[in-house]
Amino acid sequence: MKVRVTVMPKAAVLDPQGVAIRNTLHHLGLPGAHAVRAGKVMEIELDPTSEDRPALEAKLRELCRDFLSNPVIEDFQLEIVD
Amino acid sequence: MKVRVTVMPKAAVLDPQGVAIRNTLHHLGLPGAHAVRAGKVMEIELDPTSEDRPALEAKLRELCRDFLSNPVIEDFQLEIVD
Repeated sequence: MKVRVTVMPKAAVLDPQGVAIRNTLHHLGLPGAHAVRAGKVMEIELDPTSEDRPALEAKLRELCRDFLSNPVIEDFQLEIVD
Repeated sequence: MKVRVTVMPKAAVLDPQGVAIRNTLHHLGLPGAHAVRAGKVMEIELDPTSEDRPALEAKLRELCRDFLSNPVIEDFQLEIVD
């Protein structure tokens, strides 16, 4: 089982890394880039487990909220890839 | 138009950030996590442009290769979201 966790800064939060990327894209010949947000992505491979799937997903969500993201300034998205 | 660029360490390259996340997931009650890779994601919003779409995509790929990723140790994936 493989899951992908994407962590992005919340829309209301200033993203200085995204702003720096946007400005550099302008200088490098992409003047149409008007907004860039920069985030993190983690791909987690899990062993097949005896634990039931809903319990595993709940545990993953808890870990995404408490460890993989900062819920004050970031949102996360959890996708089961396969 | 919105594009998403995902930059991940190549499979053959050691990913110390991924290893650190995996070890911490073990300590936090997810012993089944046997591999974690950590990467970056950038969401770029582009103005509708007079430039033709294939030329724009080619320019984006060039910028992904030369600026947004390090092709020696990273692979990128470019998705047109809308």
